[in-house]
Amino acid sequence: MHSNPILSGDPFLAEAIAEAETGHAEGGIPIGSVLVHQGRIIGRGHNRRVQRGSAILHGEMDALENGGRLPASVYTQSILYTTLSPCAMCTGAILLYRIPHVIVGENITFMGEEELLRSRGVRVDVLQDARCIEMMKQFISENPTLWNEDIGV
Amino acid sequence: MHSNPILSGDPFLAEAIAEAETGHAEGGIPIGSVLVHQGRIIGRGHNRRVQRGSAILHGEMDALENGGRLPASVYTQSILYTTLSPCAMCTGAILLYRIPHVIVGENITFMGEEELLRSRGVRVDVLQDARCIEMMKQFISENPTLWNEDIGV
Repeated sequence: MHSNPILSGDPFLAEAIAEAETGHAEGGIPIGSVLVHQGRIIGRGHNRRVQRGSAILHGEMDALENGGRLPASVYTQSILYTTLSPCAMCTGAILLYRIPHVIVGENITFMGEEELLRSRGVRVDVLQDARCIEMMKQFISENPTLWNEDIGV
Repeated sequence: MHSNPILSGDPFLAEAIAEAETGHAEGGIPIGSVLVHQGRIIGRGHNRRVQRGSAILHGEMDALENGGRLPASVYTQSILYTTLSPCAMCTGAILLYRIPHVIVGENITFMGEEELLRSRGVRVDVLQDARCIEMMKQFISENPTLWNEDIGV
């Protein structure tokens, strides 16, 4: 059972990391995400910029998309896990659907819009998970141009 | 030629409206968008919640997605047209890609995150186009539940 969502050994973070690893194995950017509702994963995904030539399928967006059309009441009782601090676009999606809690693998390699989320009442926990940090550090050092494209730089 | 982008008879707004009408004819939510770079449409789209069972394909997101992977320098020289004031998600995408100028058909039926955009330096022009207003008024009155789902309510 899922007892404490902010432990670094969190099984849902492990699922988000598994998504990131799947993306990396596909030749993509290693960022993954899961949407959790009442202890159950209802959407999961990973960055698909490379795989689908996508400008919008960041990991969090892909998890939301794969979750399908859901009533507002589901989002407002859910937790979004992501291996990396959410960018402005993913932050906006979290705000649109009023997801109240975001658990972030790390924000060392990229600092997203955590302050905006908090200013709107979203709880943001950052785990600084060593595996997430290492995964992105290695990816960015090997693929700086692709990484910059993904964050609009 | 495209001489003054903030005239209500703007041909690019007309293209965004055409996208909205296409979406409506497909049974979808009538919101459309075009991304314009140096006087040329490089991405166009419409809301596909109904058509694709999508939680993320708002009109603006669809236009960005259909524009494909682009260098940061293209976005930062582009104008995004949308028939309706952009929600938090679409606002976040605009901020991610640092699109400097957004032209909005109307914000009477829905007020999006225009203030957030302006606070980050984005120019936002709202045309209050009668056709855009009427299109959304009619849609919302006929489909209140679907509309609420689209804006996370």
